[in-house]
Amino acid sequence: MSRKPMARPGGRSARVQASVHAAVREIEAEAGRAALTVPAVAARAGVTPSTIYRRWGDLQELLSDVAVERLRPEEPPADRGSLDADLTSWARQFLDEMASGPGRAYVRDALLGDPDGSNAGRCSAYAADQIEAVLARAAERGETAPTVEAVLDHVVAPMMYRILFRPEPLPATYADRLVRAVLTAPPADG
Amino acid sequence: MSRKPMARPGGRSARVQASVHAAVREIEAEAGRAALTVPAVAARAGVTPSTIYRRWGDLQELLSDVAVERLRPEEPPADRGSLDADLTSWARQFLDEMASGPGRAYVRDALLGDPDGSNAGRCSAYAADQIEAVLARAAERGETAPTVEAVLDHVVAPMMYRILFRPEPLPATYADRLVRAVLTAPPADG
Repeated sequence: MSRKPMARPGGRSARVQASVHAAVREIEAEAGRAALTVPAVAARAGVTPSTIYRRWGDLQELLSDVAVERLRPEEPPADRGSLDADLTSWARQFLDEMASGPGRAYVRDALLGDPDGSNAGRCSAYAADQIEAVLARAAERGETAPTVEAVLDHVVAPMMYRILFRPEPLPATYADRLVRAVLTAPPADG
Repeated sequence: MSRKPMARPGGRSARVQASVHAAVREIEAEAGRAALTVPAVAARAGVTPSTIYRRWGDLQELLSDVAVERLRPEEPPADRGSLDADLTSWARQFLDEMASGPGRAYVRDALLGDPDGSNAGRCSAYAADQIEAVLARAAERGETAPTVEAVLDHVVAPMMYRILFRPEPLPATYADRLVRAVLTAPPADG
């Protein structure tokens, strides 16, 4: 499928994206997921269906794009005074959000309508940015810190793997345990 | 959606499953994915479309079921004489299969048509069984071994996370590195 590359924010393109995304969120909130069709989204957003097909390819790709936006963190990770506290707090919040009903649905949507893997890549980049902020603060404090990649591999990956592949519920202490392990025995993978 | 629970193997139910799975594989191989429809699969398998809808719900759920079957390991992990060698060899093969084009497609299918998470759970159980076999052999040899859960968290999860969420290709040495880390600094999460 040959689609236009995602336009940069600003101007008409950004307005179209904002109104289409808002239309998806509104229709879903009001009438549920089954009511989401390209014509319905287009009508609500005030654009033609062909604008949506041209830009997003199909409904599944549009839902993937909207899901990734919803997974974008709204603020930098809280500063709790130490690497241990910052990373634990961030990991708990991440687990809480991703393992929730809506979180699971967004992750699923993000992966589903994503033929080239770029939306999934954006999800991972959001997590990496947040971790980087936590580790940069640790470095300023003079604390020894693992690499971003080690935190992705040994804190983020296990949480996402269990959310996607293992049906059992996860206690918040699972996040704590992963953080403790990566801080006390940092794997040699920098 | 209320579907019948998956019947136990044996008898008519097993024959239906085998012929429907075979029909999916054949149509996909001959005519590509776009040719897969419930009526086409039913005709090839010699069943009615309603048999498929009743048992699998819809095409996506059928494809998920077929994908999980394809991800089922065909043999126990090779015995290479030591835990390190066995686990490294298994992890390399797992990475190679899952990161391949077909592997990625099966994982995606398995996750997508899987409203209750049971198919994804089967994928993870296959990996856990293989790891368990490797660790049991290590125990028989008197080797110190990590837990199955630690290997899932720190070897399987990072590989699957990167396959799903990070577009970059993964070298085989990535698997080696994860195994070395879990064997030399086993995380305190047994």
